Amino acid sequence: MAYSTEQLGAIRRDFHRYPEPSWCEFLTTSRLVDHLEDLDVDELAVGRQALDLEARMAVPDEATLTEWADRAREAGARADVLEATADGATGVVAVLERGDGPTVGLRVDIDALYVDEADGEDHTPAARGFRSANEGVMHACGHDAHMAVGLGTIAAVQDSDFDGTLIVFFQPAEEVAGGGKAMAETAYCGAVDYLLAVHLGLDHPTGEVVAGIVKPLAMAHLAGEITGTDAHAGKAPNRGDNAIQALGTLIQNAYAIPRHESGSTRVNVGLVEAGTSSNIVADRARFEAEVRGETTALMTSMKDRLDRTVAEAAAMHGCSASLEVVSESPRADSDGPLVGRVEALAEGLPAVESTVRWADFGASEDATFLMNTVAEGGGLASYVVVGTDHPGAHHTATFDVDEASLGIAVDLLAGTVEAIGQDPPKRNDAG
Amino acid sequence: MAYSTEQLGAIRRDFHRYPEPSWCEFLTTSRLVDHLEDLDVDELAVGRQALDLEARMAVPDEATLTEWADRAREAGARADVLEATADGATGVVAVLERGDGPTVGLRVDIDALYVDEADGEDHTPAARGFRSANEGVMHACGHDAHMAVGLGTIAAVQDSDFDGTLIVFFQPAEEVAGGGKAMAETAYCGAVDYLLAVHLGLDHPTGEVVAGIVKPLAMAHLAGEITGTDAHAGKAPNRGDNAIQALGTLIQNAYAIPRHESGSTRVNVGLVEAGTSSNIVADRARFEAEVRGETTALMTSMKDRLDRTVAEAAAMHGCSASLEVVSESPRADSDGPLVGRVEALAEGLPAVESTVRWADFGASEDATFLMNTVAEGGGLASYVVVGTDHPGAHHTATFDVDEASLGIAVDLLAGTVEAIGQDPPKRNDAG
Amino acid sequence: MAYSTEQLGAIRRDFHRYPEPSWCEFLTTSRLVDHLEDLDVDELAVGRQALDLEARMAVPDEATLTEWADRAREAGARADVLEATADGATGVVAVLERGDGPTVGLRVDIDALYVDEADGEDHTPAARGFRSANEGVMHACGHDAHMAVGLGTIAAVQDSDFDGTLIVFFQPAEEVAGGGKAMAETAYCGAVDYLLAVHLGLDHPTGEVVAGIVKPLAMAHLAGEITGTDAHAGKAPNRGDNAIQALGTLIQNAYAIPRHESGSTRVNVGLVEAGTSSNIVADRARFEAEVRGETTALMTSMKDRLDRTVAEAAAMHGCSASLEVVSESPRADSDGPLVGRVEALAEGLPAVESTVRWADFGASEDATFLMNTVAEGGGLASYVVVGTDHPGAHHTATFDVDEASLGIAVDLLAGTVEAIGQDPPKRNDAG
Amino acid sequence: MAYSTEQLGAIRRDFHRYPEPSWCEFLTTSRLVDHLEDLDVDELAVGRQALDLEARMAVPDEATLTEWADRAREAGARADVLEATADGATGVVAVLERGDGPTVGLRVDIDALYVDEADGEDHTPAARGFRSANEGVMHACGHDAHMAVGLGTIAAVQDSDFDGTLIVFFQPAEEVAGGGKAMAETAYCGAVDYLLAVHLGLDHPTGEVVAGIVKPLAMAHLAGEITGTDAHAGKAPNRGDNAIQALGTLIQNAYAIPRHESGSTRVNVGLVEAGTSSNIVADRARFEAEVRGETTALMTSMKDRLDRTVAEAAAMHGCSASLEVVSESPRADSDGPLVGRVEALAEGLPAVESTVRWADFGASEDATFLMNTVAEGGGLASYVVVGTDHPGAHHTATFDVDEASLGIAVDLLAGTVEAIGQDPPKRNDAG
Repeated sequence: MAYSTEQLGAIRRDFHRYPEPSWCEFLTTSRLVDHLEDLDVDELAVGRQALDLEARMAVPDEATLTEWADRAREAGARADVLEATADGATGVVAVLERGDGPTVGLRVDIDALYVDEADGEDHTPAARGFRSANEGVMHACGHDAHMAVGLGTIAAVQDSDFDGTLIVFFQPAEEVAGGGKAMAETAYCGAVDYLLAVHLGLDHPTGEVVAGIVKPLAMAHLAGEITGTDAHAGKAPNRGDNAIQALGTLIQNAYAIPRHESGSTRVNVGLVEAGTSSNIVADRARFEAEVRGETTALMTSMKDRLDRTVAEAAAMHGCSASLEVVSESPRADSDGPLVGRVEALAEGLPAVESTVRWADFGASEDATFLMNTVAEGGGLASYVVVGTDHPGAHHTATFDVDEASLGIAVDLLAGTVEAIGQDPPKRNDAG
Repeated sequence: MAYSTEQLGAIRRDFHRYPEPSWCEFLTTSRLVDHLEDLDVDELAVGRQALDLEARMAVPDEATLTEWADRAREAGARADVLEATADGATGVVAVLERGDGPTVGLRVDIDALYVDEADGEDHTPAARGFRSANEGVMHACGHDAHMAVGLGTIAAVQDSDFDGTLIVFFQPAEEVAGGGKAMAETAYCGAVDYLLAVHLGLDHPTGEVVAGIVKPLAMAHLAGEITGTDAHAGKAPNRGDNAIQALGTLIQNAYAIPRHESGSTRVNVGLVEAGTSSNIVADRARFEAEVRGETTALMTSMKDRLDRTVAEAAAMHGCSASLEVVSESPRADSDGPLVGRVEALAEGLPAVESTVRWADFGASEDATFLMNTVAEGGGLASYVVVGTDHPGAHHTATFDVDEASLGIAVDLLAGTVEAIGQDPPKRNDAG
Repeated sequence: MAYSTEQLGAIRRDFHRYPEPSWCEFLTTSRLVDHLEDLDVDELAVGRQALDLEARMAVPDEATLTEWADRAREAGARADVLEATADGATGVVAVLERGDGPTVGLRVDIDALYVDEADGEDHTPAARGFRSANEGVMHACGHDAHMAVGLGTIAAVQDSDFDGTLIVFFQPAEEVAGGGKAMAETAYCGAVDYLLAVHLGLDHPTGEVVAGIVKPLAMAHLAGEITGTDAHAGKAPNRGDNAIQALGTLIQNAYAIPRHESGSTRVNVGLVEAGTSSNIVADRARFEAEVRGETTALMTSMKDRLDRTVAEAAAMHGCSASLEVVSESPRADSDGPLVGRVEALAEGLPAVESTVRWADFGASEDATFLMNTVAEGGGLASYVVVGTDHPGAHHTATFDVDEASLGIAVDLLAGTVEAIGQDPPKRNDAG
Repeated sequence: MAYSTEQLGAIRRDFHRYPEPSWCEFLTTSRLVDHLEDLDVDELAVGRQALDLEARMAVPDEATLTEWADRAREAGARADVLEATADGATGVVAVLERGDGPTVGLRVDIDALYVDEADGEDHTPAARGFRSANEGVMHACGHDAHMAVGLGTIAAVQDSDFDGTLIVFFQPAEEVAGGGKAMAETAYCGAVDYLLAVHLGLDHPTGEVVAGIVKPLAMAHLAGEITGTDAHAGKAPNRGDNAIQALGTLIQNAYAIPRHESGSTRVNVGLVEAGTSSNIVADRARFEAEVRGETTALMTSMKDRLDRTVAEAAAMHGCSASLEVVSESPRADSDGPLVGRVEALAEGLPAVESTVRWADFGASEDATFLMNTVAEGGGLASYVVVGTDHPGAHHTATFDVDEASLGIAVDLLAGTVEAIGQDPPKRNDAG
């Protein structure tokens, strides 16, 4: 039986309170399994059953995994789920069999971010008592709401006349672009004819729907190290090969990689750590960076330039350097015929005041791996945005969602699923 | 009874194995007290009795202090010493009353560094089993040997005809220039007529002695923070005020502060930490830096330039910044008449092959606080270097001392103490 | 009588041989006037008659103007034209009265660049003897060909059944974005109902036509100065306030101004000059820079950031700085109904193998001033690209055009002019 | 007959009014020859006779030489001197034969600097009408006064009882360290037993004398180029290899080359020129830099680091680079026995209020080449400073000398020459 807006909000708040970082969504997976069992879905693939383990990227170190698994256990995570998700094999896939019609996939993501959640009275989760219980980690991108929408859509489809199969991918590790490929390379994704991915917000207000996102940025997360020679900074600074000077040169020149004629690019050095004390010339620096591009080629070009920048910055200061890819995601665009179907549905919903057919996506998404798998199988995909009023920007401490948008999302997605079952779009339909 | 070279080496190895960082020398102080009680000195001032607590600088945070106090307790530190040194009041002063002659001070330092000790077979402490038991912390500047020399000198003076009072300052927190002022502002230091400070090595080989060091660099340790605005690095990098870009600009320009006509200067950014993840524009950076100068004025001039550099680097990227002094040490030079006495003694020692009257000191030292206190009281001071063959440089992972130098140091210092008692140098003696 | 392809090529080569920089097109204007008199146009506005003098931007200094005027005089420029164009009032507007139909404008630009033309045998202008006679200046952007096309179009329209008025703007100083505004603010431009601007090449091959350019980058050229304090670099580097260090900091941080969520941006520091000799700390630096943006707001945002970067880079090194706008151009897009007309014409031309309806323009253009004037008057404009094979990139030493494209351009433009006369497009036509 | 203070001042003002840059001292040499002929010296070696032409460094290009030779001709330079100094072979050596005693050399330098002289009323040369007639060039280091002192010393020695030979080296191109080696490698210098070099000022006031300078900085002037690839900064910035970005990286990192444990170092980038216009990515940059060190080894170490910095800065931005040595000067210290003689003389002069035996020299000097030649021949040398009140710093627009110091210098030097003749110092005399 379909969830009320209040129920959707309550589910979302529960998830919001216990955010877990990428590949550490142990408690989250356990709670999803609880919900999905309550919903009595036809098939559940938990943890390693839902993933191609080899295709995972950006899995954190064992200590981090263990710490979060321990936390989850203490917080009441199920033993069977903890076993199925051990060693960072989180996430779950749920299957609803409703007839011989097409197979429709829905992808929602489930991980949180290392952001310190705001605790002022004007931040609703703090004021209402569902602020993050895990200090330093926060659902600052709305994945808590996405999970509620995923569950709500299953419930709503159960109530509908949908003829076909619905597969919902509760994907881990989106924030690090680590989980999309692992779910894309499963038989579940291979079976999908129509894929819907959904995201709330992205600067669209409650009541607005974007039927199809295009131009997500291709992206690579990178981790680098610079190794030099330490020295006493007072007695013999000249004997050092200064990793912090190399880092400074690297930062300055990384952001200065030229803009590109072929389209948007991005570069960021988002984390640096170097040196040990003020009186020692640092012999070691590590950093995390990312590059993006409007196309995969642009992203690669930025990666090549960053590679050179890192190498020469190190060489300038007598240091050596390495730069490794932690994870990557390609570009994939929404398909017109499916976008048209979403648009039609949105226009028919009373709560939707504004429908945008196409919109550019300034950020990156590893849903593109699933979209590309579906495309390779001859299917169609669309990445849908359901607007939500959010006071702070995504990925910041004051992010929040307008829970009224959860019901809109469920109505839109369940309605689209049903409509696809009734009249499956074809690749050559007008987009 | 004077210690043999073997005994001095054994004492030094014990200290080497349990290095503790500045203001955390709890176990070290406990063991010093054990030794000093064995030596039956006439007066012992432990911890807060040996310090002007208000004059301490660069005391670490409570968590660090507690962690090392706990470690010390587990490793067998005495309860009475732990109480006397609680909250980072480490160190000890020992007094030997030997007659009505002058009061001679000896200052040795006791703290270790955050350096990860080498563990190859060619690193003697590793090969001989006395490598640091505290991972990430190391006696990489020879303070372990200094303590052995301090104890050995007491024992040797007890065997000598010294007429006067010997006060030995086992000073904490030299590496952070935090403890010198706190011991300088005690009545113990105020009572000293002749102060000897000693350091091993400093690139002088075993068998060489420097009778008096001049030109230690005045120094300030600084801690800074940069605060900006976070943003999604893919979606809206322009909304960020990038603390890591500010940091890069700061690093580049800090090292580029011009050389000075009036003498040597130094600048180092030795530690940086910023940002949280590769896809977020960093809103916070912190760093530790230091400046030095051949005179206190030069050091201050560098500090002023660094202040401006930090402020403008932050402003350039829309950030704000702060820069605080953690600790400082002034310049103080050895006094000629006392240097002459040390030189004469050194030249008479068979194990000393080479005596250097004066040498410049490229680094900084908070022994200068004690030297200045003695000078203000009309006394004389000399900072003495006893050479030691050291395979790696000071403050690096492969630093080690030649234990043969410990006996030389004890002979030189005890001899000098005795000679001072017999014929106290006067300020106007030829230097 | 319409020109043959050979004639168009010959005219272009004559212009190619005598390139003149922006606002110095004295000989160029004189030759244009000769041609236009030969063509017997109905009205000629030469130099100051063709311009709003106050609206000129980026006029070079008097010495430069005088030098080029002198050169032009020596090369045979007409005295009357030299007088009409004195003090950098170059350019000419030609009017052809052909009936009561609409007024169609055609804008071509006439200035050259400070580029040293290639002189290898594989560079056709060198091999065929029409390489630049003015060393260091070159028609490296095809404006020589644009002039030939402008003249050719007049001749072709004279042969056609065009009913209306044709006004051709031979605009000076496009490369410095200095002349567009000055021609846009004349009554000639105010009278135009339909404006066509034309550019050859831009990476489109011979046989391709782009009917309407959109997204030219808004742009500002800037000139800056940094003033510090000189000092002897050996004796007292600390006494200097180093303008070259400020410049280095500025360069590094200017290119590192973040990418923007709202669209493409550009920044370039294209010229720097600072200091006097290796042993003096430089007290003065000057530089020329530019910023661009996909919208005027983005360009302004970049300008603001550059302003801050310049100010803080100077302040960091104790210098002061100024940054002045030399010239600017806004964004303006082609209008659909007129683009449709160009597209239809192009598709009907045998020599056109490929027609692109819309294309983005990566660069900037001060034709946008004329386009905006026409738009404000209720008219329509389109910026048309006629492809040409060009061996080297625009603005580089080996740039050249395929002269076969000149005839295509003339056919396209004259055909469009005639078509507009027959059936004037309306603002609400399908674009 | 010895010159009065007024005469010395008048001579100096004449030279001050016509400053000529290094290797362009054509008029200066001509006027020196006039003076020396008036003084009736015994031998005159003009221009190429006074130089080892192959050993010249930093000779400017032919156009510059020609321009200054033409100016000199117009200003009345003698045809015979212009011929003897053609192609930048300036300078003159004068010999006074006065008996069989030792050969004493005196070296003064004659070139000026590219500094724009102040023209305010508070700048004496402007107020009194002898400000530089050559705009942009200035005697901003007192070489005008040095020449007057050189001539005055000859006149004074002629009046004295000096027994021996006096050779005065009027050396060109000191400011670029280009002329010292060329005069050092002549037979004139090879014949010298005692060399005195003299400099006014250097922050010592009128009435003070420094008998012997030590620690001049070894120095190298360097000229570099960076070559990249140009590109349209709006259309395709990514296609460029940006020489200005490479230059910015170079500047930032050059100044940041670490301080050295072994002594003072210097680095300066004193001139940069790059790019052509704001909208073109620059493909070329050139710069002039210098490095210095307290020892020749330190200077070489700085040169090596700058080499690496240039290479890596270029490589980081896809450019290539070169760095050439334009000129160099070694370190050479004053010899004690000769210093002692100067000191004794100075102490006997009523106008000398303060005599400093030794002083460090913060700058560089190619007199060190002559000093080293004399040392290699077994002779002794001293570099003497005669204090002069100077309102502005050396090498700045407001530099001036107190002409009272000219007479002091002549008395000191002539007296020392005479004293050397009477009792030649020996290498082993107490210094």
